[in-house]
Amino acid sequence: MTSTWLAVPADHPFGIGNLPYGVHTTTEDPAPRIGVAIGDHVLDAGAVAQATGSDHAPVLSAADLNPLMAAGRAVWTTVRAEITAWLTDTAYRREVEANLTPRQDVAMRLPFAVGDYVDFYASENHARNIGRIFRPDAEPLTPNWKHLPIGYHGRSGTVVVSGTDIVRPSGQRKAPADAAPTYGPCLRLDIEAEVGFVVGTPTQMGTQVPLSAFRDHAFGVFLVNDWSARDIQAWEYVPLGPFLGKSFATSVSPWVVPLDALAHAWVEPPARDVEPLPYLDDRAGEPGGLDLAIEVALNGHTVSRPPFRTMYWTAAQQLAHMTVNGASLRTGDFYASGTVSGPEVDQRGALIEITWNGREPVKLPDGSTRAFLEDGDEVVVTATAPGPDGTRIGFGEVAGRVVPTRG
Amino acid sequence: MTSTWLAVPADHPFGIGNLPYGVHTTTEDPAPRIGVAIGDHVLDAGAVAQATGSDHAPVLSAADLNPLMAAGRAVWTTVRAEITAWLTDTAYRREVEANLTPRQDVAMRLPFAVGDYVDFYASENHARNIGRIFRPDAEPLTPNWKHLPIGYHGRSGTVVVSGTDIVRPSGQRKAPADAAPTYGPCLRLDIEAEVGFVVGTPTQMGTQVPLSAFRDHAFGVFLVNDWSARDIQAWEYVPLGPFLGKSFATSVSPWVVPLDALAHAWVEPPARDVEPLPYLDDRAGEPGGLDLAIEVALNGHTVSRPPFRTMYWTAAQQLAHMTVNGASLRTGDFYASGTVSGPEVDQRGALIEITWNGREPVKLPDGSTRAFLEDGDEVVVTATAPGPDGTRIGFGEVAGRVVPTRG
Repeated sequence: MTSTWLAVPADHPFGIGNLPYGVHTTTEDPAPRIGVAIGDHVLDAGAVAQATGSDHAPVLSAADLNPLMAAGRAVWTTVRAEITAWLTDTAYRREVEANLTPRQDVAMRLPFAVGDYVDFYASENHARNIGRIFRPDAEPLTPNWKHLPIGYHGRSGTVVVSGTDIVRPSGQRKAPADAAPTYGPCLRLDIEAEVGFVVGTPTQMGTQVPLSAFRDHAFGVFLVNDWSARDIQAWEYVPLGPFLGKSFATSVSPWVVPLDALAHAWVEPPARDVEPLPYLDDRAGEPGGLDLAIEVALNGHTVSRPPFRTMYWTAAQQLAHMTVNGASLRTGDFYASGTVSGPEVDQRGALIEITWNGREPVKLPDGSTRAFLEDGDEVVVTATAPGPDGTRIGFGEVAGRVVPTRG
Repeated sequence: MTSTWLAVPADHPFGIGNLPYGVHTTTEDPAPRIGVAIGDHVLDAGAVAQATGSDHAPVLSAADLNPLMAAGRAVWTTVRAEITAWLTDTAYRREVEANLTPRQDVAMRLPFAVGDYVDFYASENHARNIGRIFRPDAEPLTPNWKHLPIGYHGRSGTVVVSGTDIVRPSGQRKAPADAAPTYGPCLRLDIEAEVGFVVGTPTQMGTQVPLSAFRDHAFGVFLVNDWSARDIQAWEYVPLGPFLGKSFATSVSPWVVPLDALAHAWVEPPARDVEPLPYLDDRAGEPGGLDLAIEVALNGHTVSRPPFRTMYWTAAQQLAHMTVNGASLRTGDFYASGTVSGPEVDQRGALIEITWNGREPVKLPDGSTRAFLEDGDEVVVTATAPGPDGTRIGFGEVAGRVVPTRG
């Protein structure tokens, strides 16, 4: 097993087998720059690259991950090997030690400049639950659901990094019993625990990315909380889909875990009970599911443990579908899995499912209950995945606190 | 009436009352830079600003319109006055003449770096037609339609400038009679003639833009062709809205007409037959409709003349709605009106409406017919609006030719 000369316990979620990338600042140096998480520290990757005369100093010295991500898979692999060498070969000890900051002393930024943001809907449990709640008189899964990974574009300008306060949105909402819509603060503010995938290598318009090329284009993985205003969404979303019910904020975790760190996390996705068209057929080849164990905490209390391995559609299928019409990819485009919900109540990734549209509120240890989020509530989503030798690969967290509306 | 010393006929669509901005290159100088259309020429605005020692040389010397747009309304007004002075005061004749290029000799780029792209659905005629075609058993307008301007996010990475070839998309489609979806090239490729509005002045998250602040944030107007794969769209769009049926390409005209050029184009929108909520209530104050006369040509033959003044929802209402939930705006965000369709068949902005889902094909002068677009077809959308003294403000064109699929 690879080991670091740094004092990092073997079972640390940011161990030597992980090495996620982020963008950090410090009080001493407010310039945003690339950091790599190792144990309880952040390594200033650009500074070490410069100090060691690395060929990759230019991409590692950027203000965000985009140049590194754009450089392509071969560079991702060599850069990762180089960073691993810094942390395992004591010859680099001086350069490394000079550029380590305790994680608690850094501030994290958005790790990359976001291009387009696509949100999928890939959990069968979630889609069935939402279908039952939103369309009680219809089949919960629409006829297309098992034929294609349903998705839509979200607002990339309101993607924010973990820790950003979430202002309660206002807008139109109309309960079925109301005669007309009313305006006011969202009354059913919710979360969606999701997993995000960011595109590194771009494509030209007219190009498709087949399943087999997923690893050539997808750079890494992170956590997403797709905040949702259920009352606004329910009133607006027919016929063109969610808009203001989602566009006020989407939070992402600051650490992008490279796909190379997830070699031990691949699992078979659920059985395909509808024959996929060839461009989506993943029944041969390497398994495309990922075994992330997600945890959702509300005010410090765990309310759900969604298992990502239960997702019907995989990240590779989503990328193949998203480009099957020739839509180009840009470095920094990202897509989220859709809410991750397992079959059990305590595995659901959104309050609307956990509380069944508010009818069965969650009880918190302080004796209060929640149907949806109140001002001041904080939601933290975390995850880990299997790493080498029984270790866990940590994803850090995506956290956000609800603050009162301004509208 | 303001007049230029240049030999530009008073009735030219790019007369002195227009002065639209774009980004151009020339064979001699391939660097993208800001141009202003005047008559049949393009003025290199950055070069003149530098030659005349203008305070605004930095924003006018940029590679796209974003810095100028970000500078805010007061700067837009003074820059426009300055450019007008260059073209009307012979004192600037030397600097201007040195920096004019015939329009036929320049290549146009995307005028701005696109942030988010939102597509609305604001024509009542269009929404009723599409409702009848896509949901023949239901009320054509959904219950929310007259309460809010329905919209959704499109793909900003595939926004292309006029003249870019459009590769026919492939994907899944399933006719109602088919047992299962099939994969292949789109069989029902269509256009949507729309009008776009680009955001200049950004906002912070949690901020709303009231109707009265529209002119402080919206910089200018251009034409949009939102290419649509109707067969892909029909199969995918329930429940989360259009995705691959739209994301392969959206074409925009290269010239952004500043709102200041449209002082004579404002008209009352249609009567509001449902009481708007206060944040959308435009029944007092200045009229918010725009009297653009649009023309859609297929292979050189005019197939439609959509009247923009018939749109139910205005650009100011769309901006107020888009931000009512606190979603922030970035410079370069743009939104399109949705297909512009008047009440008459020959005023509809999409083939699916003109041919009523293909049942009544369009006859072209060469004797051929079109239900939807064939490879090699070229679509050109143009528009003009009333200018001062009986002149017309031209928007140029958004053109695109369909080329065969590569998938």
